Amino acid sequence: MTKDDLLIIDALQYVNWNRELFEQAREGGVDAIHVTIAYWENFAEVEANIAQWDRHFEECGDLVMPVRQAEDIDAARAAGKTGIILGFQNCSPVEDDLHNVERLHAMGVRIMQLSYNNQSLLATGCYEDDDAGITRFGREAIKEMNRVGMLIDMSHSAEKSTLQAIEYSQRPIAITHANPSSFHEALRNKSDTVLRALAESGGMLGVSLYPFHLRGGSDCKREDFCQMVYDAANLMGVERVGIGSDLCQNWGYETLEWMRSGKWTFRPDYGEGSAANADWPRQPDWFRDSRDFMNIAEGLRETGFSDEEVRKVMGLNWLEFFRDAFAPASSVGA
Amino acid sequence: MTKDDLLIIDALQYVNWNRELFEQAREGGVDAIHVTIAYWENFAEVEANIAQWDRHFEECGDLVMPVRQAEDIDAARAAGKTGIILGFQNCSPVEDDLHNVERLHAMGVRIMQLSYNNQSLLATGCYEDDDAGITRFGREAIKEMNRVGMLIDMSHSAEKSTLQAIEYSQRPIAITHANPSSFHEALRNKSDTVLRALAESGGMLGVSLYPFHLRGGSDCKREDFCQMVYDAANLMGVERVGIGSDLCQNWGYETLEWMRSGKWTFRPDYGEGSAANADWPRQPDWFRDSRDFMNIAEGLRETGFSDEEVRKVMGLNWLEFFRDAFAPASSVGA
Repeated sequence: MTKDDLLIIDALQYVNWNRELFEQAREGGVDAIHVTIAYWENFAEVEANIAQWDRHFEECGDLVMPVRQAEDIDAARAAGKTGIILGFQNCSPVEDDLHNVERLHAMGVRIMQLSYNNQSLLATGCYEDDDAGITRFGREAIKEMNRVGMLIDMSHSAEKSTLQAIEYSQRPIAITHANPSSFHEALRNKSDTVLRALAESGGMLGVSLYPFHLRGGSDCKREDFCQMVYDAANLMGVERVGIGSDLCQNWGYETLEWMRSGKWTFRPDYGEGSAANADWPRQPDWFRDSRDFMNIAEGLRETGFSDEEVRKVMGLNWLEFFRDAFAPASSVGA
Repeated sequence: MTKDDLLIIDALQYVNWNRELFEQAREGGVDAIHVTIAYWENFAEVEANIAQWDRHFEECGDLVMPVRQAEDIDAARAAGKTGIILGFQNCSPVEDDLHNVERLHAMGVRIMQLSYNNQSLLATGCYEDDDAGITRFGREAIKEMNRVGMLIDMSHSAEKSTLQAIEYSQRPIAITHANPSSFHEALRNKSDTVLRALAESGGMLGVSLYPFHLRGGSDCKREDFCQMVYDAANLMGVERVGIGSDLCQNWGYETLEWMRSGKWTFRPDYGEGSAANADWPRQPDWFRDSRDFMNIAEGLRETGFSDEEVRKVMGLNWLEFFRDAFAPASSVGA
């Protein structure tokens, strides 16, 4: 199996992009990447981040192109480019205006988390002590995201909020980047209860390679990671699992501080790290960056997945899922 | 007892102000009013509302003056003017930036609710199904409000959030406009549990004359209202009770819709009203507007309060409370 045999989709990366890093994605054969353009940004700030992507598409149009519907991923693959799906890890760009969902969709955004670690106006984040579930505004936002075709992502949300999002959403939702808690206990990982409800509703899990989500952290073995994927596929169905590497690349410490502390606290918040271990974690040596996806494919094959199953997990599952997720409700009869 | 014997403070009005209405406040002998300048406004929108107050102070400086500390209320009374305390019924102007607390305080804001009916970034509102309490950001905001001298108001917050705000705040907090649930069961009114905790911490309740908070609504009798105040004073201590009339005046229906639905829903939300009873409620005939405060004072006297107690409830309690509440922490040793 070579990278030419595979369609590869990474359902989450947070990278300080430049030509060299786009070339790495091409070298790794990555056909589409969901890129993060908001953690705490408001509407105006995210407009600036979208403008930055307009410049990337202009300056590096030989390497990358925007994805607004799943068919754009087919086109990117045919053109030998990496398709870019714009997404938010928080609902902060919506601010308090339900109309902003449609505006942001029109600007190209296709995926949005309802909360990022903390309580948002829509849902509770996984670091709060208590979780009241989806808010009144959140229920309206879910309906509107369903209508326009913006995928709901609950990767950083708390459990009750996640279960309610699955229940309230008329369309399947995703957890683009997290692992089962049964593999590694972390506030960010997900219980079997959540994973079962996600799978039963037709949703998707993107397994993460961020060291804080891995058993053994940066030293996690490839075979342990791949066995976790195998177990998740057994729990959820092999069609319900993909990759969401959570690859973070080319950022300084101040960006990690921004992700963790935003503007909401004056004191350092160490998130998944700690004061003694505050910096970016080291990537596992078998997944340094976008060039190493074939290492994962090989590991999955060795774990016992068939070639067809490897193809699904590496990209075909996300592609099929996005066909419905990004289509406006009016065109899928929802 | 005449209005010249009384210092009158109203801890909440939401009025579309003009010279005529300021004259009504003077006619009623009102020495200070906490006015609402935000329900769903963000930082920039509230700057515009503050600029509007700058114009009021300029054009009607013979009638009104700004209150930035409690001593300004003494000055307003001496000058025969009504002191204006700027406040928010929501934390929306803080957006997601903890620094905005200090910025807004510097712009003259002295009172802020942590939530308005819905979940906010700081606390849960009284219309949500579930209440997770004060959020991570909320705990930071409480510390910052304590530091700069911005009073925490939980009038529209849910019970657990309110109890936690009382617990976490280093300074006494207020419920500027609500009534005991024992008087009239409404989502906006407060349980004896909350009122006891508020009183024990040195906080204040402002009793409301908004018909949805009254037993019998617009037809509530003055003697029933005054008996409720008497009972609240027995429960909380007479020093812990003042007036927060929640007088809404000179607004059209579209303003009520804004208060209720903000930008968070496309469907009408009727709040304390209903589809069949959607409009502004009619005021009780013994409290039509700011000219009728003496009716309340008389009613309180008839209910059994002493002259001194009436003076406290009508204004002296708020004045004493504001002396500490509006002072920066550095000047009160907190």
